[in-house]
Amino acid sequence: MKNISRGEVKNASLKQLKNLCDTLREEIFRTVSECGGHLSSNLGVVELTVALHRVFDFPEDKIVFDVGHQCYTHKLLSGRAELFHTLRKEGGLSGFPKRTESEYDCYDTGHAGTAVSAALGIAKARDIKGEQFQVIALVGDGSFNNGLIYEALNSLRILNTRILIVLNDNGMSISPTVGGTHELLEELKDGRAPAENIRLFERFGLQYMGVYQGNRLEELLPALEKAKETLRSSSVLLHVVTKKGQGYPFCENAPAETHGLSPKPASKKEYASALGEELTKLAERDRRIVAVTAAMTDSLGLRGFFERFPDRAFDVGICEEHASVLCASLAGRGLKPYYAIYSTFLQRAFDEIVHDICGQNLPVTLCIDRAGITGEDGETHQGVFDLSYLSMIPNLAIGVPKDIGEFRAMLRASANYPGPLAIRYPRAGEEGEVRDLEIGKFEILHSNISNIVMFACGERCLKLAKDVLKKAQSEGFGFTLVNARFVKPLDTELLCKLKHKYIVTLEDNVRCGGFGDAIDRFYLNEGRIIANFGYLDAFIPHGEAHSLAAKYGLDSAEIWRTVREFHARG
Amino acid sequence: MKNISRGEVKNASLKQLKNLCDTLREEIFRTVSECGGHLSSNLGVVELTVALHRVFDFPEDKIVFDVGHQCYTHKLLSGRAELFHTLRKEGGLSGFPKRTESEYDCYDTGHAGTAVSAALGIAKARDIKGEQFQVIALVGDGSFNNGLIYEALNSLRILNTRILIVLNDNGMSISPTVGGTHELLEELKDGRAPAENIRLFERFGLQYMGVYQGNRLEELLPALEKAKETLRSSSVLLHVVTKKGQGYPFCENAPAETHGLSPKPASKKEYASALGEELTKLAERDRRIVAVTAAMTDSLGLRGFFERFPDRAFDVGICEEHASVLCASLAGRGLKPYYAIYSTFLQRAFDEIVHDICGQNLPVTLCIDRAGITGEDGETHQGVFDLSYLSMIPNLAIGVPKDIGEFRAMLRASANYPGPLAIRYPRAGEEGEVRDLEIGKFEILHSNISNIVMFACGERCLKLAKDVLKKAQSEGFGFTLVNARFVKPLDTELLCKLKHKYIVTLEDNVRCGGFGDAIDRFYLNEGRIIANFGYLDAFIPHGEAHSLAAKYGLDSAEIWRTVREFHARG
Repeated sequence: MKNISRGEVKNASLKQLKNLCDTLREEIFRTVSECGGHLSSNLGVVELTVALHRVFDFPEDKIVFDVGHQCYTHKLLSGRAELFHTLRKEGGLSGFPKRTESEYDCYDTGHAGTAVSAALGIAKARDIKGEQFQVIALVGDGSFNNGLIYEALNSLRILNTRILIVLNDNGMSISPTVGGTHELLEELKDGRAPAENIRLFERFGLQYMGVYQGNRLEELLPALEKAKETLRSSSVLLHVVTKKGQGYPFCENAPAETHGLSPKPASKKEYASALGEELTKLAERDRRIVAVTAAMTDSLGLRGFFERFPDRAFDVGICEEHASVLCASLAGRGLKPYYAIYSTFLQRAFDEIVHDICGQNLPVTLCIDRAGITGEDGETHQGVFDLSYLSMIPNLAIGVPKDIGEFRAMLRASANYPGPLAIRYPRAGEEGEVRDLEIGKFEILHSNISNIVMFACGERCLKLAKDVLKKAQSEGFGFTLVNARFVKPLDTELLCKLKHKYIVTLEDNVRCGGFGDAIDRFYLNEGRIIANFGYLDAFIPHGEAHSLAAKYGLDSAEIWRTVREFHARG
Repeated sequence: MKNISRGEVKNASLKQLKNLCDTLREEIFRTVSECGGHLSSNLGVVELTVALHRVFDFPEDKIVFDVGHQCYTHKLLSGRAELFHTLRKEGGLSGFPKRTESEYDCYDTGHAGTAVSAALGIAKARDIKGEQFQVIALVGDGSFNNGLIYEALNSLRILNTRILIVLNDNGMSISPTVGGTHELLEELKDGRAPAENIRLFERFGLQYMGVYQGNRLEELLPALEKAKETLRSSSVLLHVVTKKGQGYPFCENAPAETHGLSPKPASKKEYASALGEELTKLAERDRRIVAVTAAMTDSLGLRGFFERFPDRAFDVGICEEHASVLCASLAGRGLKPYYAIYSTFLQRAFDEIVHDICGQNLPVTLCIDRAGITGEDGETHQGVFDLSYLSMIPNLAIGVPKDIGEFRAMLRASANYPGPLAIRYPRAGEEGEVRDLEIGKFEILHSNISNIVMFACGERCLKLAKDVLKKAQSEGFGFTLVNARFVKPLDTELLCKLKHKYIVTLEDNVRCGGFGDAIDRFYLNEGRIIANFGYLDAFIPHGEAHSLAAKYGLDSAEIWRTVREFHARG
């Protein structure tokens, strides 16, 4: 669609603004249907974002989107409508705010809970520099469970500055929002104990204001005007109740399912389904098994488990740190917790994995979904660091299954594994066979008398490896191919036996600190020639996963050239 | 002192209990004066701990100490009094709770904010297993600022179990407690708006009870009895106001200074003082400079800076994540933030360093104190992971100064460095000279025509390197010694020039993923012979730092043997 000028929003009548909302909503629906992306959350904040653009002056005023997945209307209103059809495509618009994309995006986000902290920093910098503008944090109620938000709220008085926090309350994270804070918000909406609840926010330095029909411009516009006025003397919490999926009944009725859409219907099976199936089966026999998630029950495949074992399944909201400590303490009392989480979100719980889980050497199993390059969500969602930040932790075993069947086998093997174990896997893959395996043992997939051995970790890399092997065979040679299904502990027994002069490693992870480094360390000073393939030392933007992988370091042509050269050198 | 039996506490008269408290207090004072450790915090909770042991039945009931530094009385009352003189010594009692040390310690802690999560996990496991016992989390008010605590409180209703949270409110973290939550606790103590404040906790599923003279057994004992009774139907928050340093006026009056004592008066200078001095000087000239800490202003040397620049200095409480995002957003608006923090505490902010600071490539300088083996505090305080978890992050430069003079030079160089920079250093060291340096450039300390080059990072390693060099020289040979003062970016220009066949690397960090791996990667396939020294893949317990370093991988005799062998092989 054509770009929308600032004047169009500033000068429109209420009716024109409503029409604009309809147009924007259609554009979002059409584009997300085509490009994939976050649907329901964006449909829910169309009016709110239009109202913010009407009342505030961007880019002079600054807005930080928590998580940032709900910024589509903002992009459409800030000179990017003409490019909106490139959403989430390589080289196109990001699905998240990006400072490098527009001056209207003042802070990059991707994970929950950073917006209030960031808004405080922006406001404080403004004060120090003697500048004049307003700073807004737009935060979903799901993020309000996150500890980081609380740390920022606790800091309002310390920092002694003024911001507007818009709490977009749609009652959902990816899953429905839960917990004590949620109760409090419900009370506010219902008008129970208003004075008391409002005083609570005052104690943190916030004036509370509520808009309980937050998809109506008639209510939003005056409330925002009043909030802007109040900002002269105090920070404001504007509690706006919106409907996730607003305007599209099938989204309104299934907000979890339409939270995020994939660009195409996935033809492959999801690892998450296998997790749910296997864990439920294991738990039928083993009463020690419990499951923990941080607001991701559905997308991690655990809905069935939660329904079957409601007393042994815990969704604690967007609280990755708390979930880790909870798992450690459950394990410390003899239970067997499985903590399912996306790769990059687990970064939030790094310290707790180190000390609580691995420091106490407790049998928690981390089921790490969306590992490796994920593609369209970009920098903050590429799970390309986990092999590195996990490999350095003592006591932790790390499995990287070659397909869903092997993932099932690892889960079965995990049930009696006595220590902490991480299993990392992509979203979708091939079903494959289920064969018994031992934690820490590799699998030789193809033996060859050549002096080249290739170690590949995980489904993406094994596919690349097999392609290269086929090419080699078509040229009349070959190499030994090993499924390096455990990055830690390494299968040192097998590694010692393999006497190949040339070694190739492939990993769907940054080169630094991951599997390749572990192999290099193992074969140090043995005079072998090693080629390590993994991702460059860079943040990987959004795009099509396969294309990004090739561009950032896992290029089958380059791997093939290396193997051919090794073969030629003999 | 002699062990104290459970019966002695259970059957004592009030007068006898008070005498016991005096005895315990003296024992703590004497031992900490001798062995070092946490003084004021332990003096403050003597009565509270005695009362807990009187009212509850340990080890059947479970108590989780948040941070865990205040567990001395608990250790004295649980069969460890006879060993208390070994506190913090290698092979002796840990200064923190340790499951491996006693069945009375049910969960290992070391960092703030984990106790409520852990207590919830233990209670939930109890419920699932049909066991019967009480679970207590003892948490300081400083930790109540931490996001993890909030995540756990938010989860009380979700987990539907019962625990007792004892909030030990002494108004202090290591520095005085700050922020909105602190205001709320102050209100409770003052009796302002009692019904309203108490309702707040009820909303999270907690019955609130207060003991505002928490060093008096007369008040503590009935309150704990009542709390125990209430636990039959509800979780309880027992707010106990204690005096940090109780019983020793010089501790009561200087609780920050007597929070932790070093075993001996340090003869060396602290890096923290240099940080304060340099940063203050830089900030006089450069108005962009701001300083951020997470409840550690004094121990990080920033008291003077905070007094000189109150508008540009922020202590946000024990909120490591929030502090990181705040720094990123301040930097995004053109300021130059310095975030001072201990090495292991920074683990809490891992995700925010990755995305907020480095993902946006913002000029935040991380001043990482207590890096490398720190010694007596044990596993949770050994700063031996930072080079690994930081090296894998794109855009980040990492400096490791060889002495305080070089630290000053790095700080001066940082002022105009355009990207994220981490500088990691031990607590104390030699003053040394201040010489201009360039980010990313090594320094050749000693040139020698031999075919051995040694790269050493940081003060501990350079001291080892120099000792070994002296030994070599006394035997008539030598090697080139390089001060590898930047782990990232590597000085590739210099590395290319050095043609030595034998390479030795030393780092005060785990071997996996740190400096040695970076050098190995750089020289891969060049046929050089490399020996990497760093710490084993293990958690390093408490003990004397130098002795631990040798035991876990930085042993000068072993380094010397390697160098001599390289020399002999020629």
